[in-house]
Amino acid sequence: MSSTFGSAYRVVTSGESHCKGVGAIVDGCPPGMELTEADIQPQLDRRRPGQSAVSTDRNESDQVVIQSGTENGKTLGTPISLFVPNKDQRPGDYSEMATIPRPSHADYTYQMKYGIRASSGGGRSSARETIGRVCAGAIAEKFLGDQFGIEIVAWVHSVSDIVSQVPDMTMINRSEVDQTIIRCPDLKAAAEMEALVMKTKEEKDSVGGVVSCVCRNVMTGLGEPVFDKLEAMLAQAMLSIPATKGFEIGSGFAGTRMKGSEHNDPFVLKGKRLGTITNNSGGIQGGISNGEPIIFRVAFKPPATIGLPQQTVDFEGKETTLEAKGRHDPCVVARAIPIVEGMAAIVLADCVLLQRRVF
Amino acid sequence: MSSTFGSAYRVVTSGESHCKGVGAIVDGCPPGMELTEADIQPQLDRRRPGQSAVSTDRNESDQVVIQSGTENGKTLGTPISLFVPNKDQRPGDYSEMATIPRPSHADYTYQMKYGIRASSGGGRSSARETIGRVCAGAIAEKFLGDQFGIEIVAWVHSVSDIVSQVPDMTMINRSEVDQTIIRCPDLKAAAEMEALVMKTKEEKDSVGGVVSCVCRNVMTGLGEPVFDKLEAMLAQAMLSIPATKGFEIGSGFAGTRMKGSEHNDPFVLKGKRLGTITNNSGGIQGGISNGEPIIFRVAFKPPATIGLPQQTVDFEGKETTLEAKGRHDPCVVARAIPIVEGMAAIVLADCVLLQRRVF
Amino acid sequence: MSSTFGSAYRVVTSGESHCKGVGAIVDGCPPGMELTEADIQPQLDRRRPGQSAVSTDRNESDQVVIQSGTENGKTLGTPISLFVPNKDQRPGDYSEMATIPRPSHADYTYQMKYGIRASSGGGRSSARETIGRVCAGAIAEKFLGDQFGIEIVAWVHSVSDIVSQVPDMTMINRSEVDQTIIRCPDLKAAAEMEALVMKTKEEKDSVGGVVSCVCRNVMTGLGEPVFDKLEAMLAQAMLSIPATKGFEIGSGFAGTRMKGSEHNDPFVLKGKRLGTITNNSGGIQGGISNGEPIIFRVAFKPPATIGLPQQTVDFEGKETTLEAKGRHDPCVVARAIPIVEGMAAIVLADCVLLQRRVF
Amino acid sequence: MSSTFGSAYRVVTSGESHCKGVGAIVDGCPPGMELTEADIQPQLDRRRPGQSAVSTDRNESDQVVIQSGTENGKTLGTPISLFVPNKDQRPGDYSEMATIPRPSHADYTYQMKYGIRASSGGGRSSARETIGRVCAGAIAEKFLGDQFGIEIVAWVHSVSDIVSQVPDMTMINRSEVDQTIIRCPDLKAAAEMEALVMKTKEEKDSVGGVVSCVCRNVMTGLGEPVFDKLEAMLAQAMLSIPATKGFEIGSGFAGTRMKGSEHNDPFVLKGKRLGTITNNSGGIQGGISNGEPIIFRVAFKPPATIGLPQQTVDFEGKETTLEAKGRHDPCVVARAIPIVEGMAAIVLADCVLLQRRVF
Repeated sequence: MSSTFGSAYRVVTSGESHCKGVGAIVDGCPPGMELTEADIQPQLDRRRPGQSAVSTDRNESDQVVIQSGTENGKTLGTPISLFVPNKDQRPGDYSEMATIPRPSHADYTYQMKYGIRASSGGGRSSARETIGRVCAGAIAEKFLGDQFGIEIVAWVHSVSDIVSQVPDMTMINRSEVDQTIIRCPDLKAAAEMEALVMKTKEEKDSVGGVVSCVCRNVMTGLGEPVFDKLEAMLAQAMLSIPATKGFEIGSGFAGTRMKGSEHNDPFVLKGKRLGTITNNSGGIQGGISNGEPIIFRVAFKPPATIGLPQQTVDFEGKETTLEAKGRHDPCVVARAIPIVEGMAAIVLADCVLLQRRVF
Repeated sequence: MSSTFGSAYRVVTSGESHCKGVGAIVDGCPPGMELTEADIQPQLDRRRPGQSAVSTDRNESDQVVIQSGTENGKTLGTPISLFVPNKDQRPGDYSEMATIPRPSHADYTYQMKYGIRASSGGGRSSARETIGRVCAGAIAEKFLGDQFGIEIVAWVHSVSDIVSQVPDMTMINRSEVDQTIIRCPDLKAAAEMEALVMKTKEEKDSVGGVVSCVCRNVMTGLGEPVFDKLEAMLAQAMLSIPATKGFEIGSGFAGTRMKGSEHNDPFVLKGKRLGTITNNSGGIQGGISNGEPIIFRVAFKPPATIGLPQQTVDFEGKETTLEAKGRHDPCVVARAIPIVEGMAAIVLADCVLLQRRVF
Repeated sequence: MSSTFGSAYRVVTSGESHCKGVGAIVDGCPPGMELTEADIQPQLDRRRPGQSAVSTDRNESDQVVIQSGTENGKTLGTPISLFVPNKDQRPGDYSEMATIPRPSHADYTYQMKYGIRASSGGGRSSARETIGRVCAGAIAEKFLGDQFGIEIVAWVHSVSDIVSQVPDMTMINRSEVDQTIIRCPDLKAAAEMEALVMKTKEEKDSVGGVVSCVCRNVMTGLGEPVFDKLEAMLAQAMLSIPATKGFEIGSGFAGTRMKGSEHNDPFVLKGKRLGTITNNSGGIQGGISNGEPIIFRVAFKPPATIGLPQQTVDFEGKETTLEAKGRHDPCVVARAIPIVEGMAAIVLADCVLLQRRVF
Repeated sequence: MSSTFGSAYRVVTSGESHCKGVGAIVDGCPPGMELTEADIQPQLDRRRPGQSAVSTDRNESDQVVIQSGTENGKTLGTPISLFVPNKDQRPGDYSEMATIPRPSHADYTYQMKYGIRASSGGGRSSARETIGRVCAGAIAEKFLGDQFGIEIVAWVHSVSDIVSQVPDMTMINRSEVDQTIIRCPDLKAAAEMEALVMKTKEEKDSVGGVVSCVCRNVMTGLGEPVFDKLEAMLAQAMLSIPATKGFEIGSGFAGTRMKGSEHNDPFVLKGKRLGTITNNSGGIQGGISNGEPIIFRVAFKPPATIGLPQQTVDFEGKETTLEAKGRHDPCVVARAIPIVEGMAAIVLADCVLLQRRVF
């Protein structure tokens, strides 16, 4: 059941690129919480195509409607149904995909799995599917923020080999992130990234990047040991976002090159709780949050749909050349920021509700 | 419910380091399959502590018993209960942990989450928990191999900064992997790795590494789009293994530095099916297997328990020095091989049974 | 997570009485199946309030829209989102409930559980919640009918102490059921039932009844032993319908008064399969369908909302008299028919997909 | 996945009649609770075959071992693994079933579903499967009793047409129930029941009955609306017990013959909370507990395995006569008492943990 995520804070998304609309049902949001569309729309706007020069030129307004689950601006504890109508549909842009599976896209595998696929090619693998996630994530984030002061901030860590420097990730906030359209708070790196993306767009090519995310003020005790370790749930959540190729927590892959005596995070008294001096653990030990900031990174590949001609074969195996005609993202990391934040919020809200007994 | 994994092939593990034993129940294994303890024991032996100079000196024999679910050497389609008695228990080795939480271990977070923890410190975060996974994984692997010819091979890709070269991962097999006790098929790298691990052991320190894994002969169509994408389930599975810090599929983090025109895997006719020329996708597109080998890597941190003195604080926040007295692994990657293979097998068996309709 | 049902054919419903609308997402419907709103609307029309003299006078048109999951009239294998806008909202009718919990209704328990509740009183316990079930059930029914010829027919077995006689439930069809507005195929009993319901309506009181249901052409092998026995899933499904008080399968409670030698269903050869001479088992043995018709009954209490004055207390505990002012059903069994059929279809579709491997 | 039940308090059972043993894993039991085998054994003893003249003569001692999840007599919050070795195995008694499916038993349906079945015939449909439930139920009951004072008492309501009278089910306790071997607190009815069962045993026949159950001191707010209504979960739990044919809550089927004005339970102030004067609702309104005693009844058919000769056919369809040779229960209701109590406790523990946030 691929379209359901979470156990206590449960999200189901629905919708393809070119049906009546996309959306989600959130089941498990606590009752009595203030909630209107205005709490959700800002993150949707940050996800929106056409928002800046570094994203696709395809413009989608994407206005969310809360169809149920609230009354007088408060949640009822019942399922919250969210809907975003589809508007800017140009099926013509996709006609070539009827016969030629786009390399590194989902056309071929959907056809093999289901024996049928949406004419738009993307279907459920379309980036529009993430709209439901961003809506559900914004609600989760409001719950976490209002109740516990939890803050979640993601930013672009790197684009291709341009790597940003963020001196203090315990302080970084969304205003700093949104200072640049590439959403990188290191202004020098941001300028280089934007230049590279614009150049790549002109070349009808695409480029990848890495998103960093920090979750602050997370209480100790979140995450279920063994299979549902907090980092395991985050890993699933992040690798479920289209175009992701990797996930690392804390020291990550670089940590494999350290010695235990360097890597271990010694404990120290921080006010009334134990904290750690370093944070190679990334805020999680034994699958359970330890009260330190949760820090992780997600790798996004260069988008598969490019305007450059590609030598490939059609569904029959006949050699052909494909040139994607639609308007596509040369790089997805800037628009991926609210998706990464949303999925992190969904995971944390789920863990908080599973653990709620101890607060 | 942290101790359950999988939907159609469902595994529940139980057991702490120092209780009567550890084990698992496998619910969903198809009926009529030949199965005895002899099908499981080899992978358990590869996981066993004390098997070689590069692992802990703590020797655990770990013999599995099938308690139910088979008759006359065949599965009945009913839950398969697996049990491995605990033997070599020396609680004395762990006495210091009663008052001092080991840095980067789970002592502190378990105590905070549950208000109680196993005296052995490790509890469910102990490596012994993985015995149930290896048993369940060996059964999954037999199902995948017998029915579909699927092969799963993992090996040590790197130890610290010593990186192996494996020229052709479509051919690598377990005999080659097991040629060296470090389980790296690149013999030159293996020798260096073993030397480094032995040196680290003498220094009472520990060191990390990366495990690579390939799954071959996987049919097209496995994996559920959206949240249960095949790579997302693999990511959860791998990050649920103790001491892991990262996961990457196909091109992984390196893929973020490529252009779309380089990264895309063009289609080509391979016999009767479409295949891809390159495999940056790692065998998965849009969350669904495409018939190419599934390739991923898992980062393991240096083990947290080291003999070197560590400056830290006790549960009360009082400064102290901790020197672990037990016999511990200087590096876990060699013993992690059957765990990575087992978890991969569990994920694939689950996907196969969810998708079985189409075969 | 109360609003999710099913494992392989999964249904999530959403919506309160007086929000923008009610609906459901169906996840797991097989791809390539022909499906339009016209396949769903007939069962919605049979559920509709105001359809006849024996139901409430409150008239709701209830037109379903498929928002996603199909293209060109065929299912894509992706989540099917269904939406029915709310129309005839008269919150004024419910104003008294703000301070007085209706006896035997859900006002009090919702308030205690959530600390808040929908102003309409009913909220998720409103009969409108069943719209999503009927939609999802109609789709399940189409799948079962198209693929396997499975037929599901429910009818009114009794109203109060007026009990119908149905000589051959292996033949009964929906046309016969819909001959009378009370939906009882025994015309003599039906006339008495209708008279009793009309009289009760005039008296501003309500009356209960029992619904019978038969599922025919069900293949052998459906249902998962132990906790998810087919009859256990049906029992949960039926007791989850508002106003139900009991469920019995096959011989049911009457079977407790029989001897084993009378109750046992001897096997006999029926064509190429084994069948049973009698069917006290109700088509299920050991939790698994045996190929005989599945037969069960569901008890519906008299509706709690009545026009007669009731002595009760308000939320503060102060004695008061409540007279419900809205337009309410004097008896729900006739309108419950498509709900019972729909839930039965959802359970069977789930079981079929879980078992699909063997067909 | 038939062998898993519950969401927050999750139980997995395993084991057939004639394997090494039967058992369960309980995942989700709160940490820090006192628990030893002595808390579980009494209910196992009440379930034990051979305990009295009204049960089977087959004597099974059934000693439970806690294999993990506790230390120093306290739960750790980790999975509790429970094991009961099989002893009194006489496969010879079952040899005839290899070729003849027992009428109204699970031999035929298991064979059809799985293509293989345990030689003992019963396999997972054997009454021994319920041992795991009784163990898991006893632990749930201890949690509910220790923490909240919840009491669960079941008793034999009727055997065949002998119906007991229990004047005040708010007071009934287990000592009264266990006064008679048939476990009916109405001594006059009990004597008749026992005589009927003994007579039936001599006649090599079997007889059915109804079990009543009351759950007292249940807090308001348990149960999840819509599909996981408290009565729906109880219905699934009860119909998952072997040999059950029906479930009713509160007024049940008799309630269908009442008018709304009679059936409604008016509210009244009881101390500081609202209570109801009557309890036709059976302690649940809108799927949520209302603080009144939860009252339900479960119908058990006459056991299928009888010594009388039965005309039937073998697996090939050839006519034959079957006379069961083993030692079987003439009536299961007395031994079913701890199973009904156990399943009720599992459902309530699950609901309590899901709702725990509000306490």
